[in-house]
Amino acid sequence: MAEKLEKKVTPRSQDFAAWYNEVILRAELADYSPVRGCIVFRPDGFAIWESLRDELDRRIKRTGARNAYFPLFIPQSFIHKEAQHVEGFAPELAVVTHGGGKELEEPLVVRPTSETIINHMFAQWIHSHRDLPLMINQWCNVVRWEMRTRMFLRTTEFLWQEGHTAHASAEQAQAETLTMLEVYRGFCEEVLAIPLIHGRKSAAERFAGAVETYTIEGLMADGRALQCGTSHFLGQNFARAFNIRFLDDNNEMQFAWQTSWGVSTRLLGALIMVHGDDQGLRLPPAVAPIQVVIVPIWRKAEERETVLGAARRCASELAQAGVRIHLDDRDGLTPGFKFNDWEMRGVPLRLEIGPRDVAANAALIARRDQPAGSGKSKVALPDLAQSVRRLLDEVQQALHAQAARALADNTHSFDDYDALARRMEGEGGGGMALVYWCGEAACETRIREETRATCRAIPLEEAPSGPCIVCHRPGSRAYFAKSY
Amino acid sequence: MAEKLEKKVTPRSQDFAAWYNEVILRAELADYSPVRGCIVFRPDGFAIWESLRDELDRRIKRTGARNAYFPLFIPQSFIHKEAQHVEGFAPELAVVTHGGGKELEEPLVVRPTSETIINHMFAQWIHSHRDLPLMINQWCNVVRWEMRTRMFLRTTEFLWQEGHTAHASAEQAQAETLTMLEVYRGFCEEVLAIPLIHGRKSAAERFAGAVETYTIEGLMADGRALQCGTSHFLGQNFARAFNIRFLDDNNEMQFAWQTSWGVSTRLLGALIMVHGDDQGLRLPPAVAPIQVVIVPIWRKAEERETVLGAARRCASELAQAGVRIHLDDRDGLTPGFKFNDWEMRGVPLRLEIGPRDVAANAALIARRDQPAGSGKSKVALPDLAQSVRRLLDEVQQALHAQAARALADNTHSFDDYDALARRMEGEGGGGMALVYWCGEAACETRIREETRATCRAIPLEEAPSGPCIVCHRPGSRAYFAKSY
Repeated sequence: MAEKLEKKVTPRSQDFAAWYNEVILRAELADYSPVRGCIVFRPDGFAIWESLRDELDRRIKRTGARNAYFPLFIPQSFIHKEAQHVEGFAPELAVVTHGGGKELEEPLVVRPTSETIINHMFAQWIHSHRDLPLMINQWCNVVRWEMRTRMFLRTTEFLWQEGHTAHASAEQAQAETLTMLEVYRGFCEEVLAIPLIHGRKSAAERFAGAVETYTIEGLMADGRALQCGTSHFLGQNFARAFNIRFLDDNNEMQFAWQTSWGVSTRLLGALIMVHGDDQGLRLPPAVAPIQVVIVPIWRKAEERETVLGAARRCASELAQAGVRIHLDDRDGLTPGFKFNDWEMRGVPLRLEIGPRDVAANAALIARRDQPAGSGKSKVALPDLAQSVRRLLDEVQQALHAQAARALADNTHSFDDYDALARRMEGEGGGGMALVYWCGEAACETRIREETRATCRAIPLEEAPSGPCIVCHRPGSRAYFAKSY
Repeated sequence: MAEKLEKKVTPRSQDFAAWYNEVILRAELADYSPVRGCIVFRPDGFAIWESLRDELDRRIKRTGARNAYFPLFIPQSFIHKEAQHVEGFAPELAVVTHGGGKELEEPLVVRPTSETIINHMFAQWIHSHRDLPLMINQWCNVVRWEMRTRMFLRTTEFLWQEGHTAHASAEQAQAETLTMLEVYRGFCEEVLAIPLIHGRKSAAERFAGAVETYTIEGLMADGRALQCGTSHFLGQNFARAFNIRFLDDNNEMQFAWQTSWGVSTRLLGALIMVHGDDQGLRLPPAVAPIQVVIVPIWRKAEERETVLGAARRCASELAQAGVRIHLDDRDGLTPGFKFNDWEMRGVPLRLEIGPRDVAANAALIARRDQPAGSGKSKVALPDLAQSVRRLLDEVQQALHAQAARALADNTHSFDDYDALARRMEGEGGGGMALVYWCGEAACETRIREETRATCRAIPLEEAPSGPCIVCHRPGSRAYFAKSY
């Protein structure tokens, strides 16, 4: 019966949004919930998040930041303390008005981000330059009321980490902002195999309350960009709003200089939309909860124990070598059904073992990054662990290389506004457009309103070097794209 | 200046509640927050939680449960679906009435526990006996509006894990309930070094919606009990309320049998109150974020580099051996100040190294589980890693042994009601009282109202074997104590 339910997902090229949702539901990553705009992370989806989170957590801790936990609720008055911050977040707030059966004197906001409450605490903890830098990270849930939601990418509640740091000088805070941008960039490229562009945000796209926002942006397979992480230089904006002051080495009181930075469960959306194909998910081995699935294959009942025995030995050897494996010994399902199932779930390597393989002391390995018909490689069982580790490395590299090629193929330079507009109007998302832009909001607004492309990032090292694609005044290069 | 601030905490014997709060603040585990009833977990406190959580997570996963994540918000109507559940939780709810600037049609409750929303999803996922058992765990924040709060023990928001499982038969669900009780018991005894009593809860103390609640209970140093974890057999109560049905192997529709189980950040409170002393925290090595602190000691400037060099070599050797170490190379603080500081923070072992130690290729080790004056042991540096590992094991065992002795010394059997009442009225918390109880609510209520002791646990294997301490009818043994 289960086999009958098994039908292909909508091809990615035919309807990208339908394909995306179907893959998520069919791979059992997430499900819709009865609460508007909120999803349920099912075990297979949450396991990817755990794997991703644990590796990013190690990288964040290596920079010297430490984890802590601050209250879910924020007094409504706190949100109003920083002028731009309240303007940015007020329309998205969920508000608790009743607690313990009574109406609250002051409503509590469910955190949309924690700058305000964390900086309130920083003001209690920071007194002297010896208390700096203070580098705190928090893994938590946040809530932003969203009208149009999309699984993983835009939901009312989502999971993320948010780092908050305070420093004695602007230079140190700026350096921290860029350090974290680089941590995110390295993590996405090396671990998620997602190639990125990165740079500054335009004033219009900045975080509410930041002096400067830096971003990493990926290009999804439909040609639209996705912001994958941001790192903000906050200057002294929150320090002034929350009175975070310290005695410097000249015994003078100074406001602290600050940063904040975050990535969220939308990275799961990026993984799907960058690597997925018509067969389903394709997970980079570095974050795949199951790196190798073993499918034992037999026809006659008397072959069963021989094949299962060999499969179990492979499983145990690979587990001992630190490979995350799963032995699919389910009865009553054909090998073909199992192959499709694990392809849908994105497992990087499939090891097939049948009676003839056992006799030859070998097994077949199929790579998820290569088309299903493109041949399997035979591995000798005595070299199994070594071969698997090599293949996992190759899959990791190959997924990155494929995605890097897609990014390069879909990044186009334009010096003519009409050509840019035609590109963005055409089939597909339009890809990444590299243009000269003068930096004026008016030109950015015209591009956005007429083509729906927004400024994704301004490369870090840019200086004016060409005529603005809109007004022809001197401009610097900037990436524009339609985005999620 | 920092040294001047350093004064002793209130002695534990003098004012237990003051001692508890001062230790938390001085060891920088947590801080008060501007949100009523909510605390901030500072990095040193959160690191203990992470260490505890990671080990418990491994043990939970070993039972076959998998992690997932469900929405923070629950439609208010869901809470009302199970009659006892709503009665138990309604007075404690925080309610979101506004989202995105508008009043909501149906208010959302911030989860006090997730039975309702998880079981709503279980009803979508469970169709056949082949979908069972379904075993899900969730690490998350929950909110229960509390009037009287105490750091870690009772706060409006707290962190916990909640497991939810569904099974094909009552027997399987009952077995799961006891499996998880045993996971918790083993975890607390082996990892937290907290000796426990365990058993069933009385009807009055049961979880709202459970058929049976099982509990592990520790005895704090002030003679009061603390519930450290609970595991509930839910019968078919939630399955009926949420229509969780499956086709059994006879092709008949059945309601699923369920369990839920949880432990929370109150375990941090247990760690402090079981092991702490007048010098501050004492952390079991298994969960101590820093297991060994190295304090280099020198007087003359020319000794500095020699001593620091040796200290760094010790640090690197221990780190390589997998020991969590910290080298306290802060300038301008005396060794005595550092000793007090690390004693307050509960680090299990302190390694002191001075010029004479370097010359002798040795170091001194002080154990946090032993009184400060009781002598330090000398270790030869070539055996350092081995000696440290042995000592860490010894400290882990010794903390458990000390606490087990305290539990034994403070557990008393009573067959006379007045003796029980006098004990509970006397100095201190009264300890754990083992009595015969007939099981009737009237007798339990009289004990609670007159002595403030409640039924903590009824040992699992009990049968009526003596006269009830209140009414003298046949009774079984039960533990009563005043509790947090």
